[in-house]
Amino acid sequence: MLKKLLIANRGEIAVRVIRAARDLGIRTVAVHSDADAEALHVLIADETVNIGPPAAKKSYLNVEAILKAAADTGCDAVHPGYGFLAENAAFSDAVTAAGMVFVGPSGDAIRLMGDKVAARSAAAAAGVPVVPGSTGRVAGIEEARHILTETGFPVMIKAAAGGGGRGIRIAGNLAEFEQAFPQAEAEALAAFGDGGLYMEKVIGQARHIEVQVLGDGTDAVHCYERECSLQRRRQKVWEEAPSMALSDRVRAELCASAVRLAREVGYSGAGTVEYLYDDAADRFYFIEMNTRIQVEHPVTEMITGIDLVAEMLRIAGGEKLRLRQSDIAVRGHAIEVRLNAEDPVNNFAPFPGTVTGLRLPGGPGVRFDSMLYAGYQVPPFYDSLLAKLIVHAEDRDGAITRLTRALGELQIDGLKTTKPLFLALADDPGVRAGAVHTRWLEGWLDAHAGAVAAAAQL
Amino acid sequence: MLKKLLIANRGEIAVRVIRAARDLGIRTVAVHSDADAEALHVLIADETVNIGPPAAKKSYLNVEAILKAAADTGCDAVHPGYGFLAENAAFSDAVTAAGMVFVGPSGDAIRLMGDKVAARSAAAAAGVPVVPGSTGRVAGIEEARHILTETGFPVMIKAAAGGGGRGIRIAGNLAEFEQAFPQAEAEALAAFGDGGLYMEKVIGQARHIEVQVLGDGTDAVHCYERECSLQRRRQKVWEEAPSMALSDRVRAELCASAVRLAREVGYSGAGTVEYLYDDAADRFYFIEMNTRIQVEHPVTEMITGIDLVAEMLRIAGGEKLRLRQSDIAVRGHAIEVRLNAEDPVNNFAPFPGTVTGLRLPGGPGVRFDSMLYAGYQVPPFYDSLLAKLIVHAEDRDGAITRLTRALGELQIDGLKTTKPLFLALADDPGVRAGAVHTRWLEGWLDAHAGAVAAAAQL
Repeated sequence: MLKKLLIANRGEIAVRVIRAARDLGIRTVAVHSDADAEALHVLIADETVNIGPPAAKKSYLNVEAILKAAADTGCDAVHPGYGFLAENAAFSDAVTAAGMVFVGPSGDAIRLMGDKVAARSAAAAAGVPVVPGSTGRVAGIEEARHILTETGFPVMIKAAAGGGGRGIRIAGNLAEFEQAFPQAEAEALAAFGDGGLYMEKVIGQARHIEVQVLGDGTDAVHCYERECSLQRRRQKVWEEAPSMALSDRVRAELCASAVRLAREVGYSGAGTVEYLYDDAADRFYFIEMNTRIQVEHPVTEMITGIDLVAEMLRIAGGEKLRLRQSDIAVRGHAIEVRLNAEDPVNNFAPFPGTVTGLRLPGGPGVRFDSMLYAGYQVPPFYDSLLAKLIVHAEDRDGAITRLTRALGELQIDGLKTTKPLFLALADDPGVRAGAVHTRWLEGWLDAHAGAVAAAAQL
Repeated sequence: MLKKLLIANRGEIAVRVIRAARDLGIRTVAVHSDADAEALHVLIADETVNIGPPAAKKSYLNVEAILKAAADTGCDAVHPGYGFLAENAAFSDAVTAAGMVFVGPSGDAIRLMGDKVAARSAAAAAGVPVVPGSTGRVAGIEEARHILTETGFPVMIKAAAGGGGRGIRIAGNLAEFEQAFPQAEAEALAAFGDGGLYMEKVIGQARHIEVQVLGDGTDAVHCYERECSLQRRRQKVWEEAPSMALSDRVRAELCASAVRLAREVGYSGAGTVEYLYDDAADRFYFIEMNTRIQVEHPVTEMITGIDLVAEMLRIAGGEKLRLRQSDIAVRGHAIEVRLNAEDPVNNFAPFPGTVTGLRLPGGPGVRFDSMLYAGYQVPPFYDSLLAKLIVHAEDRDGAITRLTRALGELQIDGLKTTKPLFLALADDPGVRAGAVHTRWLEGWLDAHAGAVAAAAQL
């Protein structure tokens, strides 16, 4: 078992990791920037090291300072949390090279899953359904026409050398495709000096569903799925477990596919295999694998009773997986909402400030993971996540009602938060019916500014 | 389903009941004394009624004022919590007579279980083991000698007409008995005008183990047992579920016996059948049945996932039991400690005052049921219970470690509390081994004042 752990992060996840370490008898070292000297993770850790100025690049992303802090305090392991250096392969390698344990997968596994084409190949090799499309570059219009038989329409044509959203065209039928393909080729050549194209089926309305896996480098298990379809600007804001959309058969296939991928790559630690699920077609497609603990991991913990961060620490300490798949069962339904220091009535403008008063919800089935305390000054330099309110109940209806109750009890004075958004969402017939997809929330927000504003007056 | 509920209580249990009601969509009315206008149960309820001066007799025990508050606010039900009027048969009858639902058993069931001899007879009739002894009055020395063959030694001789601890003698062998019996007869006659005696085996070192039951008047189920052997002055201070002492066979027998008793008396609502368990003899004996929700109910909720207060409300609303016995399963181990406003370093002297700062523990497996908030002024008029810290983990060792971690995070400024007692107990080899009995804690306290004082310095 590990003896002393440096937590290379801040905020609620640093608090979360400290709790798990302490539950296992591991000593903890918090690092912090100048702006975080009074942060909760600093107040509750066994030891603390100031690693630099507020700017993340100079502190929480400062590999040299973090490694020095770990060495100076005699740590034998480093937990990266999520964000910051969590999916930085070079950091994983550097921690290992310094003779410590990186609580997460190897640099190679991080690199593999960070490369979209390589990850897609690994998934395909493991028999995980990927979005239909070309396996790499399309040789020409002849091959393109053949690929169309797999993708159908609409289909996306993308410059292989393009980044982000650049060089993308969508064709809705064969006529559009025949016109678009040569144009895209010419444009790509002009723009990137490389006319290579890539094709992928466009998945229309789909849900974001992800499978939590745990691996020890040899074996792997899944802890069932989460549904995170409620997103704003591709950021998840409301997550659930289990998904409300899957049949037992599809759930079993989905989870088994994630375990195959984890085994295929010899995955070690906690990871999440992300999918799109097309309700209409009843099919799921691999998107990517996140090689870290995720913000929304508590919903899985609530329904399975497994402490995922503790399992990460055990695996990093050299233990083999303690959990057999048959040990892992689901009880009830859990929902997490992300309380950000943002004003939902004012286009989610950041709202840093001081917490002048705090009243927390409680009782059965309520968990509050946070770095907040009364008197805490939220610095303006980092992510706006303040707290995660997680509720658990027998079923989804019960969880939504409990969420409303717990939000009603929660009082964070001195800041504006996204609480009104969740009060309004919990009351929405579409959310209650679970009839959502990844673009649903943005449309809802356009139409329901009044409902959010009304909830903000409560 | 009930529509509007008056909570005839205060403190953490009033908060707990409001939460359960809200989870079921039931409106809530809090009553309060002059001293509790700013209490949390008042702040979070839908409506509030001041029912009188601070003295409990004039407010929380004032049946007339409570019934008037319920009528004035249009309530259709009253939840008594625990303590105050919870086991007052006349109150149950009065609520019913006023045309409302009493969330608990009938007045008759409360009366039956409140009468020790009648409760013992009901238990015996249901095949529940009772402490060996006379079934009622002992006819004379001849019958007494016969009863000795069942009780063995030591045996207690008690005046049938005596109350509390008066008129009790303990005989350790036959010679002592032959001498004590006629003396006790004469003394009882002199003291109570009634020489009738009652005999009962003295159970030596025993554990306090109790079974949670739920009944709907027709059927009943159990939610397994709790162990509450750590007591001070007969007050439980640390409770666990499941018990660490029972074999599967004894657990099954114990729980089945509690269900038989609940069925025998047509029990409706949540109740607890209490037992002594003699480790050495591997036998359990019925003590009494508590006809209300108990302080320590959350440990059962943590291991079973059942919301007991919600089940009480459902049953009171006329629903039949939703849970079949086969639906109820145990996951992991839970511990609750009672944080009282008392100074454990100064003979547990009451310590009312103002909460100047508050930092709550959190993360997986941690629940905090409380009426505390920063700025809250703890009034000196009532029970000293401030909060219950409940932890849940895979196994008992994990729960104890998590308890220590959560206690470490908990910070209640401005008051002295029993937190140091629990830090010291969680670190004690006897507690860790689970080798405790109902008189264990008082002996431990005599010997470990230093450990508690040291913990108070942390």
